[in-house]
Amino acid sequence: MAKDPKPRRPRAETPKGFRDYFGPDVTERKEMLDRIAAVYHLHGFDALETSGIETVEALGKFLPDVDRPNAGVFAWQEEAVPGGGSGDWLALRYDLTAPLARVAAQYRNDLPAPYRRYAMGPVWRNEKPGPGRYRQFYQCDADTVGAASVAADAEIIAMLADALEAAGIARGDYLVRVNNRKVLDGILEQMGNSPWFDYSPHGPQVGGTIHSSMKEHDNALFSREDVLRTVDKFDKIGEAGVRELLTTGRKDASGAIIPGLGLKDRQVDPLITFLRSRGSTNTETLNNLRAAVGSSSIGIEGVDELAQIAALLDAGGMGADRVVIDPSVVRGLGYYTGPVFEAELTFEILDDKGRKRQFGSVAGGGRYDDLVERFTGQKVPATGVSIGVDRLLAALREKGLAGAQAQGPVVVTVMDRERMGDYHAMAAELRAAGIRAEVYLGNPKNFGNQLKYADKRAAPVAIIQGTDEAARGVVQVKDLILGAKIAAQASVEEWKSQPAQVEVPRADLVATVREMLARETGAQ
Amino acid sequence: MAKDPKPRRPRAETPKGFRDYFGPDVTERKEMLDRIAAVYHLHGFDALETSGIETVEALGKFLPDVDRPNAGVFAWQEEAVPGGGSGDWLALRYDLTAPLARVAAQYRNDLPAPYRRYAMGPVWRNEKPGPGRYRQFYQCDADTVGAASVAADAEIIAMLADALEAAGIARGDYLVRVNNRKVLDGILEQMGNSPWFDYSPHGPQVGGTIHSSMKEHDNALFSREDVLRTVDKFDKIGEAGVRELLTTGRKDASGAIIPGLGLKDRQVDPLITFLRSRGSTNTETLNNLRAAVGSSSIGIEGVDELAQIAALLDAGGMGADRVVIDPSVVRGLGYYTGPVFEAELTFEILDDKGRKRQFGSVAGGGRYDDLVERFTGQKVPATGVSIGVDRLLAALREKGLAGAQAQGPVVVTVMDRERMGDYHAMAAELRAAGIRAEVYLGNPKNFGNQLKYADKRAAPVAIIQGTDEAARGVVQVKDLILGAKIAAQASVEEWKSQPAQVEVPRADLVATVREMLARETGAQ
Repeated sequence: MAKDPKPRRPRAETPKGFRDYFGPDVTERKEMLDRIAAVYHLHGFDALETSGIETVEALGKFLPDVDRPNAGVFAWQEEAVPGGGSGDWLALRYDLTAPLARVAAQYRNDLPAPYRRYAMGPVWRNEKPGPGRYRQFYQCDADTVGAASVAADAEIIAMLADALEAAGIARGDYLVRVNNRKVLDGILEQMGNSPWFDYSPHGPQVGGTIHSSMKEHDNALFSREDVLRTVDKFDKIGEAGVRELLTTGRKDASGAIIPGLGLKDRQVDPLITFLRSRGSTNTETLNNLRAAVGSSSIGIEGVDELAQIAALLDAGGMGADRVVIDPSVVRGLGYYTGPVFEAELTFEILDDKGRKRQFGSVAGGGRYDDLVERFTGQKVPATGVSIGVDRLLAALREKGLAGAQAQGPVVVTVMDRERMGDYHAMAAELRAAGIRAEVYLGNPKNFGNQLKYADKRAAPVAIIQGTDEAARGVVQVKDLILGAKIAAQASVEEWKSQPAQVEVPRADLVATVREMLARETGAQ
Repeated sequence: MAKDPKPRRPRAETPKGFRDYFGPDVTERKEMLDRIAAVYHLHGFDALETSGIETVEALGKFLPDVDRPNAGVFAWQEEAVPGGGSGDWLALRYDLTAPLARVAAQYRNDLPAPYRRYAMGPVWRNEKPGPGRYRQFYQCDADTVGAASVAADAEIIAMLADALEAAGIARGDYLVRVNNRKVLDGILEQMGNSPWFDYSPHGPQVGGTIHSSMKEHDNALFSREDVLRTVDKFDKIGEAGVRELLTTGRKDASGAIIPGLGLKDRQVDPLITFLRSRGSTNTETLNNLRAAVGSSSIGIEGVDELAQIAALLDAGGMGADRVVIDPSVVRGLGYYTGPVFEAELTFEILDDKGRKRQFGSVAGGGRYDDLVERFTGQKVPATGVSIGVDRLLAALREKGLAGAQAQGPVVVTVMDRERMGDYHAMAAELRAAGIRAEVYLGNPKNFGNQLKYADKRAAPVAIIQGTDEAARGVVQVKDLILGAKIAAQASVEEWKSQPAQVEVPRADLVATVREMLARETGAQ
């Protein structure tokens, strides 16, 4: 063994499942969130920022008998307090709803009731990383705690539509679709199943799996989940396929037999009526739903709530081009306790295989009435929305509303190391005029490197002043964007008529750069 | 034991050492950071956002032989990979510089060189919580990696002054003071000490303690830290006190004897000259420093660098009212490798005991040239600044520039549950006019509760429309701010001349509210 082994150098690597965001990745997301926050604020919602860390006890995801309970979350145990037994378990938050539950319980005597709050920030999931699956990502939520009225749901639904437009999604490119868990429960009742439903609390949605604590009566003929799974396939396999899955079973495309749930055809009828109930207007849809739920009181309650929401949205001027009642929304139906909604982007994109498909869901939410109960024992009604920040930003990029090559700063090059003060003065003047500018700070010896740097920075303009120019009181102003175009395509005549580099008096520096930037912006 | 013990309810508590930020706490910090980011951007700095989690290896804070190496940081071990040995150690970042070092090494072939970046976000410290000491807080940094020239330091110093003004600190209320570690090293040489200085890398500043890996020659007469500690007391104990501490020792106010370092008087002279070198102009200060460092080549280099910085700041129009060369800056001198600087707020505040004192430091930075070396083996010059986000926000509050009671939304009250649609339409109209507005969403039965709610929300205006008003096509618009004033102080005459509640046609709702808000804003 060597006497003084050189320590191995650490690896410079982003930890697995995480990513680094550079420049526009950061600023475009921030701008989008700022526009959404402005809409939330306008609706009377207040900002809330909790820390990234919660006690495991408050998050409520862990079993006391698990030694290292970090499945799904990043968790660790604090060091033992001397003489005070073992340390607390802490964890990184996995969503923004669990911290809201803790805050709503902790400050229940101080917060206004109802409490409208929005929150934006990173959350962490201790999952196996995969392509496009990151272990830290942003969430952007708005919730109303303490309002039992469906007016609170209607408000959040309308606010979501406004927020999408504020973010840059044009009317006609999105649709918020609204359903109600109670309607499906009514349908299940009509199907001859009378499970005793213990509405699920707003449990964490970890790892893409919905953790529902719903318990059904032991005598239930089938579980809600079974039915939801089938309903979710309606678009693909149609009425006949759904009927097969619920009754005798179905042979899929590969020839495999999927066993049926063993229901009778007449039991399936209410569900089919439900699946076919979307009409050309909300009124028509609601009439169809009313027929489907028949005499089920929970079903009737659900339809009544949807009717109220439709009326409120109508009163707020929210047309069918923005929000519709749509019974085909099933995502979250096993999770929420009342109204549920989902925002879909309706424009088409090409998938990985070059096939056209709708962009799809970017936001969703609904009512969950057991938020604070874990802490206080009292039921507190709540409803909220969560926007998929990365999905929505990807949509803006698809639409050309983000992701453009960001323009870099004007680069003041350094021809003469002794005259750095002059170059700094030029940059300061440009900035005072609101123009992003910097002095080249690398080794100035090789001028080619300075232009390569300007290129890497996507600089629109470079400033050049050597000893000769300084003596004559002039500067060279080089239009790098035009220069690149000319190098790529222009004829000699074009080059002469619109030279990419001009010599101007030093006093005209700012005006010349401003003109050049305006020309480039106009030409783009 | 009970047969079915009821599980204990979880405690709804912010974890110890963390805090929750409500409403203006969030938005005021965000606005301040937005204004600072705009300055950074204007100077050509690009945003960078790394995740909160890094590998312990990349953070470089841990010894391999420590089993649970989480002193100072929050760290945990990933679950073992089946068949792949033990899992990686991960940790929450404790500052924004360590992740920058990792990024600069990892992407060194892709990033522009020099790389200017800014970063803002939470960092975590696993410290014992105390009053005003939190385990998560914001940092706001700007750094230039890969620029050896002091022009990079000058740029960051000037940018810091601009950023403070953009945040709201008036010129004259702050001063950026600049020093250079190399000057002090020259002084130490002149004092007869010639330690071999291994300039400290930019080690983490955890728990308020500076972890310097500086090694000094075994034959050194005294350590730099000894001298820095003494210099730091110059303001309080004066020349005679410093001289005592460096020579024979000193009796403090309590009568306790502090042993001296055992230097001879003539050895102390250069340090005293250094401490007294701040002149009325930068030129004077630089001349004094040049005299103090004598023939020390490192000292001369340090003074030359300061002279260059002074010239560059001058060329950029940065006057002595904003930035000065000041040898009394010692904070960070043991930490950085070249120029150091500190921004102080010079206005007075009252401390806990009601005594006047200067607000003090809100930002600092300097040059650290060993950032990337840990990873690549190559020295990469770097310089940067970190703004104390909480301190600066506290300063803005002192100045009345933040922290005012935020105005709540206009509250549309609910007199008639059946007419929620009408109330929603009112709120939607107000919002369409850019006025923050909401409908009361609690149980509307008790109208007093609605007004209490409006009060808790700091609502400026309440809208009231009962069945009677609806039938007559009017609404009541209640000025809650004026109402509160009248209740507190106004005479009957004033009340009559400027009634706090007016009845207006429904069509005039928006115009009336807008007028009322303008009146209140004007009156404030």
